[in-house]
Amino acid sequence: MNVSTSLKVRLPAFVLLSEVVMLLLYAFFVTYDDNANAKLQNNETNPMENSVYQDYPYFADVQMMIFIGFGCLLAFFRFYGFSGMVFNFLTATFSIQWAILIQGFFQFYYAGKIHLGVINLLYAEFACAVVLISFGAVIGKTSPIQLLVMALLEIPFFAVTEWAVLKYIRITDAGGSILIHLFACYFGLGVTFALYRPSLNEGHSKEITSYHSDILSLMGTLFLWVFWPSFNSALTFKGDDQHRAILHTFLGLSSSTITAFALSAVFNKRGKLTMADIQNVTLAGGVTVGASVDMMISPVAAYALGIMGCTACFFGYRYLTPFMARHMRIQDQCGIHNLHGLTGLISSTAGICAILLATEETYGPSMYQIFAHRAPPEGDPKLLELQRLIPGLKPGLGRTAQEQALYQVAAIFSTIVASAVGGLLTGWVIKLPFMASPSDTDCFDDDLFFDMPSDFDSVKGPRTSISYEEKVQMSSMNTKVDTGRQSL
Amino acid sequence: MNVSTSLKVRLPAFVLLSEVVMLLLYAFFVTYDDNANAKLQNNETNPMENSVYQDYPYFADVQMMIFIGFGCLLAFFRFYGFSGMVFNFLTATFSIQWAILIQGFFQFYYAGKIHLGVINLLYAEFACAVVLISFGAVIGKTSPIQLLVMALLEIPFFAVTEWAVLKYIRITDAGGSILIHLFACYFGLGVTFALYRPSLNEGHSKEITSYHSDILSLMGTLFLWVFWPSFNSALTFKGDDQHRAILHTFLGLSSSTITAFALSAVFNKRGKLTMADIQNVTLAGGVTVGASVDMMISPVAAYALGIMGCTACFFGYRYLTPFMARHMRIQDQCGIHNLHGLTGLISSTAGICAILLATEETYGPSMYQIFAHRAPPEGDPKLLELQRLIPGLKPGLGRTAQEQALYQVAAIFSTIVASAVGGLLTGWVIKLPFMASPSDTDCFDDDLFFDMPSDFDSVKGPRTSISYEEKVQMSSMNTKVDTGRQSL
Amino acid sequence: MNVSTSLKVRLPAFVLLSEVVMLLLYAFFVTYDDNANAKLQNNETNPMENSVYQDYPYFADVQMMIFIGFGCLLAFFRFYGFSGMVFNFLTATFSIQWAILIQGFFQFYYAGKIHLGVINLLYAEFACAVVLISFGAVIGKTSPIQLLVMALLEIPFFAVTEWAVLKYIRITDAGGSILIHLFACYFGLGVTFALYRPSLNEGHSKEITSYHSDILSLMGTLFLWVFWPSFNSALTFKGDDQHRAILHTFLGLSSSTITAFALSAVFNKRGKLTMADIQNVTLAGGVTVGASVDMMISPVAAYALGIMGCTACFFGYRYLTPFMARHMRIQDQCGIHNLHGLTGLISSTAGICAILLATEETYGPSMYQIFAHRAPPEGDPKLLELQRLIPGLKPGLGRTAQEQALYQVAAIFSTIVASAVGGLLTGWVIKLPFMASPSDTDCFDDDLFFDMPSDFDSVKGPRTSISYEEKVQMSSMNTKVDTGRQSL
Repeated sequence: MNVSTSLKVRLPAFVLLSEVVMLLLYAFFVTYDDNANAKLQNNETNPMENSVYQDYPYFADVQMMIFIGFGCLLAFFRFYGFSGMVFNFLTATFSIQWAILIQGFFQFYYAGKIHLGVINLLYAEFACAVVLISFGAVIGKTSPIQLLVMALLEIPFFAVTEWAVLKYIRITDAGGSILIHLFACYFGLGVTFALYRPSLNEGHSKEITSYHSDILSLMGTLFLWVFWPSFNSALTFKGDDQHRAILHTFLGLSSSTITAFALSAVFNKRGKLTMADIQNVTLAGGVTVGASVDMMISPVAAYALGIMGCTACFFGYRYLTPFMARHMRIQDQCGIHNLHGLTGLISSTAGICAILLATEETYGPSMYQIFAHRAPPEGDPKLLELQRLIPGLKPGLGRTAQEQALYQVAAIFSTIVASAVGGLLTGWVIKLPFMASPSDTDCFDDDLFFDMPSDFDSVKGPRTSISYEEKVQMSSMNTKVDTGRQSL
Repeated sequence: MNVSTSLKVRLPAFVLLSEVVMLLLYAFFVTYDDNANAKLQNNETNPMENSVYQDYPYFADVQMMIFIGFGCLLAFFRFYGFSGMVFNFLTATFSIQWAILIQGFFQFYYAGKIHLGVINLLYAEFACAVVLISFGAVIGKTSPIQLLVMALLEIPFFAVTEWAVLKYIRITDAGGSILIHLFACYFGLGVTFALYRPSLNEGHSKEITSYHSDILSLMGTLFLWVFWPSFNSALTFKGDDQHRAILHTFLGLSSSTITAFALSAVFNKRGKLTMADIQNVTLAGGVTVGASVDMMISPVAAYALGIMGCTACFFGYRYLTPFMARHMRIQDQCGIHNLHGLTGLISSTAGICAILLATEETYGPSMYQIFAHRAPPEGDPKLLELQRLIPGLKPGLGRTAQEQALYQVAAIFSTIVASAVGGLLTGWVIKLPFMASPSDTDCFDDDLFFDMPSDFDSVKGPRTSISYEEKVQMSSMNTKVDTGRQSL
Repeated sequence: MNVSTSLKVRLPAFVLLSEVVMLLLYAFFVTYDDNANAKLQNNETNPMENSVYQDYPYFADVQMMIFIGFGCLLAFFRFYGFSGMVFNFLTATFSIQWAILIQGFFQFYYAGKIHLGVINLLYAEFACAVVLISFGAVIGKTSPIQLLVMALLEIPFFAVTEWAVLKYIRITDAGGSILIHLFACYFGLGVTFALYRPSLNEGHSKEITSYHSDILSLMGTLFLWVFWPSFNSALTFKGDDQHRAILHTFLGLSSSTITAFALSAVFNKRGKLTMADIQNVTLAGGVTVGASVDMMISPVAAYALGIMGCTACFFGYRYLTPFMARHMRIQDQCGIHNLHGLTGLISSTAGICAILLATEETYGPSMYQIFAHRAPPEGDPKLLELQRLIPGLKPGLGRTAQEQALYQVAAIFSTIVASAVGGLLTGWVIKLPFMASPSDTDCFDDDLFFDMPSDFDSVKGPRTSISYEEKVQMSSMNTKVDTGRQSL
């Protein structure tokens, strides 16, 4: 049976409906944050101390990662460059505007309104990154409608999980290893489990790269690599915490990159390098340092974490991804379980170790700022004493290191469970027949959802062997076919 | 008649002459701005409060838009990638150095000198953006000489208009919808009207894209998209104004993007997406929020403006551009009238509405800062009162909202008239025979002005059908031809 | 004799060994800089005054230049895009982590530890730029092992030279014309002299570009162009010095760009533009303003320096590079001697002139800050007087302008000698047989070190003329070959 994949009605209907909903929600619920509100500026506010100057540079850097970095990275298939880049653009844009509202209700809602500033955009970008990571699991096998519905559902699942974990379990996770990477990974695996396509388990003839798509994808990697320190440090405390987050991310990426080259060469039959390793495994270090990125773990620990994350990620690609596809009905297209799941688990574990090892001797009194829940509770005389040393210190819960470590463990498990369940449910929803899901044959092919330029046929080449006679016939037919076959 | 298009004498002559002129002008008239002058630094100046730290980040972001964003976006033709990117590079570079001088005379001239700081570069980049937008109307049909002469003339036309409108009409236009987008659009249409090529009205065989040029162009779009908030907010007041400008631009782009996808699908015969829509129409929101970008229009208004601008832009591409080409002798190659003209008009109208609706209740006393011309004039007791609340407030003209709205209307009309006339005159000048204008056949072809790599012939493919015998002959001729025909 | 070029053992061995060494060194010697150390934060430190906010934006910009800018620029060969981009990635990553340690010992070592902050990363990026410039001389003819060993040796050579010149000769060189560009250039020439391949003197059949590699490379140029002001100003004094450095770099690049276009056209047989000129010669101005980039040289001087540097660079490419290859056994693949050597020499000379012409009348008292070694020595009463005007002024050596000029000359010569000797020694080391050096035939070919996607054969095309019969045979063989031959 051929299900229609035309976007003519579905896409506009979805967009129109969501725009009406958003217009209403924005109209009734969204107002300016104090830093963006003209009325609250007066002779006591200094324009240069507006929060926009602290948040915007990081927002802009993460924008580069999301739109350019992910966009190029996901354009790695030979016949799926338009889709990789364009669906990323569409999904990201929709996710951010949706996340501004949903996260807004959970985190920036007071006096009956969501208060909007650049900080909300920054949070929304993190929610968007979650959706794009999950997208990686199902790229090539999903329609834009499915991706939009996935974003529509994943954002609330994520916002609720984030809110519940931060409000009730209360964890320390500056780089988002638990809430971003683990959530995104297991949600994506849930979705791809529901969308299982048995006939693709042996691979698809279009599941290949080309010389140019590989270069484009590597450019995406490089953009992600360059801006990852901004990503990991965007939501830390200002000052030394952010400083360390940048240093650790750089060191982790750095050691992970050279390790990826070594592993790529040693496990290649002919001792050559494999582009897919360089496009993906090099980034493992950025995730692995995440959970402890702002702590005093020492530079060498960041370096070591990069090596460990990269190694786990590499072997994940080599052994675990094929195993999960064959035996667990989990077809993880980009291997997000390696780059975000395994590394996220290592990172969370490292974060727990860092929590257990933290002492006032190493951190000084600002330990109670970084590990906010270990700060003495309101009313404790020690709090006043600490506040003299660290003026902005907020009262905490008076947890011990061991208690905090247990809460981190609880957060890891709850996040994994919540995301996997959310992913499964979402997968079942987007499997519904009117979602324009591509047939197995049409996967990994731009032609399904795009008007293609005339040279695309030649990029693709004939699908099956063409006889000599046919070729001769084609070559004398007309210019257009000719141009197609030979150019670009 | 074949007019020579060799650049051998013309380009160096133009460059040499302009360099001599610039060296003289720079030598006699350009000195450092106070913030860049070592002599004025002393124990009362704080290096970290130097204006460079407020201006440079925005300058750098706009640089990315101009050189990378526009460069890639304009490389969308299959056989015109070199030209799109390289002529953009040349024209932009020349425009900025020329605008530093011309704008300098109008805006940064005192004590007999133009005072140069990064802020001048920022202004010059905006002038450069004007030239590049106009370039969009005539891309593919102009020689680099014509583009340089166009820049040479457009910059002064623009600088005079900008100066006259700001000094005499006095308007509010933070994002440059009137002075940048409308000016650039109608100037470009004037030029292309003068350069009308009847034989190209039915299209040109090389007026096509390729798989890779489309991807490259989309990358350009993404760079513009990512940095547009910096563009729209670069020249606003610091603090909450700039904060709002960033928020509104992001929201406008965001809603405009998803709308573009919906419209692209619904108006495509087979319900597919069209890359040209995604490359261009998605950006409409950025222009549409321009004129009111720093005002308290509320987030939902920015969202709605994005939808409106995108819709106008989309239908402009579909109906207006072909109509203007067929019936008005206006061949608008990139459809700048849709992306900058229609959206600019909507934006200006929205700006007028925002002016009419502005109240002290919404803005507080800083209303007189944003709508500077509504501030009480020098000597008015209300001014002193306001200055106690908003320390840096400058005396204004005491205009009412209605008066200001009328001035905005006057500015819109004057700008359109000035730019269209300037464009026509410029078009007639660059139509002169020694400007190396390409023949109709040679349009949209890199080969005319570049030494091409050997594979370019294969990118192009044979122009007319090649017989079987010829192909056989070619294939056995020699390696070079072969390489050419089959590779990349 | 065929030497093996497999990376299976060599690359992992090198990486493993260096990781063990680095882990040990990082563990024993690297700790946090005061600005990144939580323990040193207290109620007297203001988080927003942390040094990270002064250094990180420049670090991020230079990251873009190194990973994206150089990466794309070096991907200019038709069959060597993977290698250009990937080896740049590997070499840069390794160089930075190695430079953090080596430079750390010379510049950030006290109390028994290297103190690590973002400022070290910034310094390390400059060391990395040195390695990548030298890489330009030998690109296409070296294995990744050779490049890593080159980085391993060049970084200490550079760090020692930098330390000795700055500590003993004491020079002024804000943009690094002497220590970065001249060092990198003559080191690279030393290496390529040692690696001389006589059979490549007549050119190599794969030493060509393609339509897409040229565009990619131009994108690299544009990224370098856009961020060069950050590069040249990253290490100047804050405030007006940095402001001027940005202005001068922009002006220099700008005049150099339009000059490059003029020269390209005038020296082309058919009056067309040559992409290689636009990719390389346009950047000459950025180097040429380097040595005097923060001085009060006046804007027109920066403009003029751009023209001079560009002209020297252009003629270097045209006459000097072929001459050196033919008569001096120096095969300078990317022409680094033109873009970094000749321009570096002009820049250094201009720096000396600027030193000789500097007067207190032009600079005010801050002259003794910019020309630090001319400041009065400790104990001189003039020092106290100056310190009242310029609070942070450090005691200097009381040198006259003439003395300082002589020291600059000494620094130029010592740097050239040290780098050339270091390059020669390094070249001899990486010529050793187990370095996986590619054979002459395999140069400029990605296939040697990468698993290539199936369409790479078609990118390459047949190496020698294929007879008609063979083609027919191939075309009917199987899909894979077909896809390969005809697509992308």
